Amino acid sequence: MADPARPVETRSARKRRAILEAATTLFLRNGYQGTSMDEVAAMAAVSKQTVYKHFADKERLFTDIILSVSGSIDELLNAEIRALADSDDLERDLRTFARRHVRSITQPRVVRLRRLVISVADRFPALGRTFWERGPERVISGLADSMDRLHRRGLLKLDDPHVAASQFAYLVVSGPLDRTMFWGEEEEAALTEEALHRAADAGVRAFLAAYGTGRPAG
Amino acid sequence: MADPARPVETRSARKRRAILEAATTLFLRNGYQGTSMDEVAAMAAVSKQTVYKHFADKERLFTDIILSVSGSIDELLNAEIRALADSDDLERDLRTFARRHVRSITQPRVVRLRRLVISVADRFPALGRTFWERGPERVISGLADSMDRLHRRGLLKLDDPHVAASQFAYLVVSGPLDRTMFWGEEEEAALTEEALHRAADAGVRAFLAAYGTGRPAG
Repeated sequence: MADPARPVETRSARKRRAILEAATTLFLRNGYQGTSMDEVAAMAAVSKQTVYKHFADKERLFTDIILSVSGSIDELLNAEIRALADSDDLERDLRTFARRHVRSITQPRVVRLRRLVISVADRFPALGRTFWERGPERVISGLADSMDRLHRRGLLKLDDPHVAASQFAYLVVSGPLDRTMFWGEEEEAALTEEALHRAADAGVRAFLAAYGTGRPAG
Repeated sequence: MADPARPVETRSARKRRAILEAATTLFLRNGYQGTSMDEVAAMAAVSKQTVYKHFADKERLFTDIILSVSGSIDELLNAEIRALADSDDLERDLRTFARRHVRSITQPRVVRLRRLVISVADRFPALGRTFWERGPERVISGLADSMDRLHRRGLLKLDDPHVAASQFAYLVVSGPLDRTMFWGEEEEAALTEEALHRAADAGVRAFLAAYGTGRPAG
C-alpha cells in the first residue's frame, strides 16, 4: 500500500539534495561572498522560498555543507588508521596509508574545500575550528591511538603519541598540501601520483628513522 | 640649494605609502573581493585618481602588496638559514632557528596574509605560485643548501638535502601553522609562545633522530 506522505517527502529530500549540490558547486567556485541564495535557487531549479525552507540563511547552508563534506572524508580514513595499530608489517602499512592519505587530501575538490574554509576562518571562527577538530585533529588523534598501541607492541619507540602522530601526518602531507594551497587549478595537475608517492614514502622513511625500532611484529 | 623636484616626489612617495598601507589593512581585513579602490582612496585620504596613478588596477595593487610583504619576510630568515651551515652546536642552533621561524610564521598579520593568498589562489594562480616560490620554497631551498653543507661536515646524514630541508620545515611549523589557518582571530591567542616552542623543539628532536649523526662539530 502506498504511503501518501512518501512522494512529498521524496520530493522534498530531492530538492534538498539539489540545493546542497548547487550550493557546494557555487561556494567552491565563487567563494562565500561570491555566492548568493538567488544563484543557489536558480542552479538547483527551485524557488528561493524552497531554499529558505530548508536552510535558514546562507551561513547555515554554508556551514552544513562544509561540515558534511569534512565528516565524510574522515570516515574513510578512520578505519584505515585503526587498522594500523595491528599491523604486522609496519613500514609497508604506513607507506600504504601515507600514499592514500596524501592522494585523498590533494584531490582538487578537497583542496578547494580547504581553501574555502581557510578563506572564511576570520569571519566564521567556530566553523574553522570545528572543521579543524573534525578533520586534521581527528586524523591525528586516531593516529595517536594507533601509535600508542604500536609503541606498546614494541614496533615504535615514542614519548608522546600525539606529538609523533602529528609529526607523521605533517611529514607525509605537508609538502604536497602546502603547494596545492598556493598553486591554482592548472598547476594542481603538475602534482603527479608519482610525486605524491615519493613525498609520502620519504615521510614514512624519516618517521621510522626517528621513531622506528626495526623490530618485526611479534 | 633646494631641489625643486624633491617636495613633489616626496609627496608622491608619501601618498604611495599611504595607499599601500590602507590597501594592506583593507585586503587583510575584508579580502580581495570585499575591498574596493574607493575604500582604499578614502582610507588613504587621497583621490581615486591618485590611487590609479600609482596602481593601474586593483589586481596590480593587490599583487604588489602580497609580493613585497612576502619578500621582506624572507630576507629576515635567509641570513639565519645561511648561518646554520657553519653551526658548531647544531642542536642548539636548529632549535633557535626553529623557535624563531614558528613564531614569525604564526604572527597574526602573516597568518592573515597567508590566508588571503590561499583564498585567491584559484583566481590568481600566478600570484599564488610566485608567493609559494618566494616564501616556503625559498626557505626550503636555503635550508637545503645549509643541510648539504652540514652533511659534508658530518653533522647530518642525508641522501637528498631538499627532501630533508622540506621535512625539517614542516616538522617545525606545520602543527601550529595548520591550526592558525583554520582558527579565527580569537583562538590565535591560544597559541602561546610556550606551545610554539614545544612544537618547534619536538620537530628538531624528531629531525635529529632521523638525520643527526650525534657527532660534534669538527
